[in-house]
Amino acid sequence: MSELIQPRTLKGFRDYLPEAMLPREALIDTARRVYRSYGFSPIDTPALEYLEILSGKGSDETDKQLYKFQDHGGRDVGLRFDLTVPLARFAAQHIGTLGTPFKRYHIASVWRGENTQRGRYREFMQCDFDTIGTESSAADIETVLVIHDLFHALGLHDFTIRINNRQVLTGLLERLSLVELATPILRALDKLAKIGRAGVAAELVAAGLSAGQADEVLKLPEISAEYSAGTEESTAQLLSAIEPLVSGTETGERGLTTLRELTTTVMAAGVAARHLNVDVAICRGLDYYTGTVFETFLDELPGIGSVCSGGRYDNLAGLYTKQRLPGIGASLGLDRLLAALEELGRLPTAATPAQVFIPYFAEDQLPAYLRLAAGLRGKPYTSPEGTQGTINVEVYPEAKKLGQQLKYADRRGFRVALVLGGDEWAAGQCQVKDLARGETENIPIGTAEQLQLDPLLASLQRLLAQPV
Amino acid sequence: MSELIQPRTLKGFRDYLPEAMLPREALIDTARRVYRSYGFSPIDTPALEYLEILSGKGSDETDKQLYKFQDHGGRDVGLRFDLTVPLARFAAQHIGTLGTPFKRYHIASVWRGENTQRGRYREFMQCDFDTIGTESSAADIETVLVIHDLFHALGLHDFTIRINNRQVLTGLLERLSLVELATPILRALDKLAKIGRAGVAAELVAAGLSAGQADEVLKLPEISAEYSAGTEESTAQLLSAIEPLVSGTETGERGLTTLRELTTTVMAAGVAARHLNVDVAICRGLDYYTGTVFETFLDELPGIGSVCSGGRYDNLAGLYTKQRLPGIGASLGLDRLLAALEELGRLPTAATPAQVFIPYFAEDQLPAYLRLAAGLRGKPYTSPEGTQGTINVEVYPEAKKLGQQLKYADRRGFRVALVLGGDEWAAGQCQVKDLARGETENIPIGTAEQLQLDPLLASLQRLLAQPV
Repeated sequence: MSELIQPRTLKGFRDYLPEAMLPREALIDTARRVYRSYGFSPIDTPALEYLEILSGKGSDETDKQLYKFQDHGGRDVGLRFDLTVPLARFAAQHIGTLGTPFKRYHIASVWRGENTQRGRYREFMQCDFDTIGTESSAADIETVLVIHDLFHALGLHDFTIRINNRQVLTGLLERLSLVELATPILRALDKLAKIGRAGVAAELVAAGLSAGQADEVLKLPEISAEYSAGTEESTAQLLSAIEPLVSGTETGERGLTTLRELTTTVMAAGVAARHLNVDVAICRGLDYYTGTVFETFLDELPGIGSVCSGGRYDNLAGLYTKQRLPGIGASLGLDRLLAALEELGRLPTAATPAQVFIPYFAEDQLPAYLRLAAGLRGKPYTSPEGTQGTINVEVYPEAKKLGQQLKYADRRGFRVALVLGGDEWAAGQCQVKDLARGETENIPIGTAEQLQLDPLLASLQRLLAQPV
Repeated sequence: MSELIQPRTLKGFRDYLPEAMLPREALIDTARRVYRSYGFSPIDTPALEYLEILSGKGSDETDKQLYKFQDHGGRDVGLRFDLTVPLARFAAQHIGTLGTPFKRYHIASVWRGENTQRGRYREFMQCDFDTIGTESSAADIETVLVIHDLFHALGLHDFTIRINNRQVLTGLLERLSLVELATPILRALDKLAKIGRAGVAAELVAAGLSAGQADEVLKLPEISAEYSAGTEESTAQLLSAIEPLVSGTETGERGLTTLRELTTTVMAAGVAARHLNVDVAICRGLDYYTGTVFETFLDELPGIGSVCSGGRYDNLAGLYTKQRLPGIGASLGLDRLLAALEELGRLPTAATPAQVFIPYFAEDQLPAYLRLAAGLRGKPYTSPEGTQGTINVEVYPEAKKLGQQLKYADRRGFRVALVLGGDEWAAGQCQVKDLARGETENIPIGTAEQLQLDPLLASLQRLLAQPV
């Protein structure tokens, strides 16, 4: 026999075992459900694209990380490194057919040959939604509502969406005649949390600002911090306090108006003021965004950074079409969010999607076990958290000793076992074993030929509604 | 400005627009729900693997189709071309942690540089489930039950699962001392539908069989055809008619016993006999499968071939581990099934996941439109087919003319529009427009500040329950 090939994954890549995959699928399902509830439609694009499409706009950094090669036909191709470039190519190609506005979500893997020493993976999933082909601030408002609904749907009720409009800062820089220095100014402001006010002021002066100009620029984060109480009143006060900084500049005033309309309407639509935090110092990168920008933080874990970010752009697909396509989008940080949920102890630990385990115990009763499972499968129950689910049932495939089978059930994390040996079948009784609490209950089930499952179903529904 | 890059996809690759993606997601959701209902757990593996892993067992054909290249670290890597090789590698690596039996499903893209002239795509999705680490025929039985439930869940109630056990043929060849000629015999039998009985007989003789031996071998398809009535009785008769062909050979008798147990138990577990068709001539490839094999055909479209196939194997991961891992698995033909559903006119044609459209009509009422949408979103309804859904609502993002907005709604395929201009808001009335039937109904909704949505919800639920 030939030598064995060592089974291993590539550096920076990983397998998802069931206990990691189940919460991942649950998270994706929730995101899809919320995106769809607003009318966002799913799309998909190929993992492989022409290299010229992918490297069209990329920075040197992105270009270096691209997985690229020649395909069988000698074409230069690459694996997509995000979902934005494919969306731009897709929109340029299909927008005539699709019409605008076009709302899509796209949940798919991307690949980057990154340095894995920073704990990054080379394959990860992105989870984006965008509204393209409209400049209306109603789309910006809706984007914030989607994020709001999404975090509540994930059971994460303590979160803050930090919002800004890039035009506010642009307006201020116009008023101070500092537009040319926008890039170093943004870079310096970005470091505020790290190097403090004095540090940023020094950097601004080094970039060519007068001390007075630096003071003016630094008012943006200062005012933001001053009115961060998370009430309707404090938000209104903040916006008024910003007004003098941008007054007289068309861009700045427009930005401020949009920001005011956004926050007011979002709250009028039912979002609690505590979830909104206007911060006129955030920018989210230098080039891409042109209007509304936002980040989302978990109040319990602010240190992990933003778990959902995005913003408005002027022109999505300029590299591929002359048709101007403005839009707004956001990206959910799937891996970061999963890590957060794990840290908060909110991830289920089961390695099986089934709640109910049936040991195969009486050897001649396989058809009866299978009918029992079929009778319970798909029936509804309500979880301790109040969500609706359906009952999934696994029958062990071998007539082994009960102890071994229950050990298997325990290892997988089933919630309940239905034990029926020859005696139980003869007596028409099922032992309902609560595997989490170690309690048992005997429930009548009729005969193997004529199962009466109503009492058993009621018992299971009672049990599955109890917190562990 | 620089020249535009032509937006295009690679040959053999395709974009999924919403109207193609929505049924695809629905199909995948149904498969996942059914797999999970039996306790199959999701896993995922990297798209990229070490080349030696992928080409370990592959044929020359597969090898030629592999997308392979060197990564940034100079490693030879490739894109997976199926989900079976990754499962084998995964099992070899993790089975100690996972324990057996291990039941997994895996729904993911694979890549093959195939000849696109045959209408094949170079990127497509596979949708597999397997039970590994057990030889028990209970796992074979369960696999058939999963397929049965899956097709019913897809609304495809007319299907036939053709079942065989490879050991029956092996037993017959043993009895005839023809085991060495298994490969040409299988090849010849495989052509029966194409070249007829006489053609196959000629090929068998050319392969070295006597005319009598050829007759014996041809009894397998003949008996299968004779008893194909799809009743419990005809299945039992078929199995009895096969008995003399394999009697005295251990392999053949074991195969027949397993086949008998499988069909009997599957029917005892609730599967109608019309869905089962024992056909002792099917083999599903020459090397891989060793026991139960099956194919699934849609009765209305037999010509498209099997839409779900699989079988039992002796040793999944022999290339990567000394641990013997027997198992059984099946693969759902996603693309073939979607094509079939389309041909049968069973695919929804909407390009949006939302049923309800709200035109943004009275300019000062955006918050009220948003509250109206929020009040309806996520509420339950029952489809004409009896499935439960939740209401999804899109608000148009721009206060354009109503006609333009309704044209958009029509193009996307919304089911209903809720029209509220200034007059309607003032009157506290909503015009419910059935976009499919062109009927309208006026429903009271309270005031913009104090919406009373119960009557509107009832009207929507009524409307969404009606077939179009």
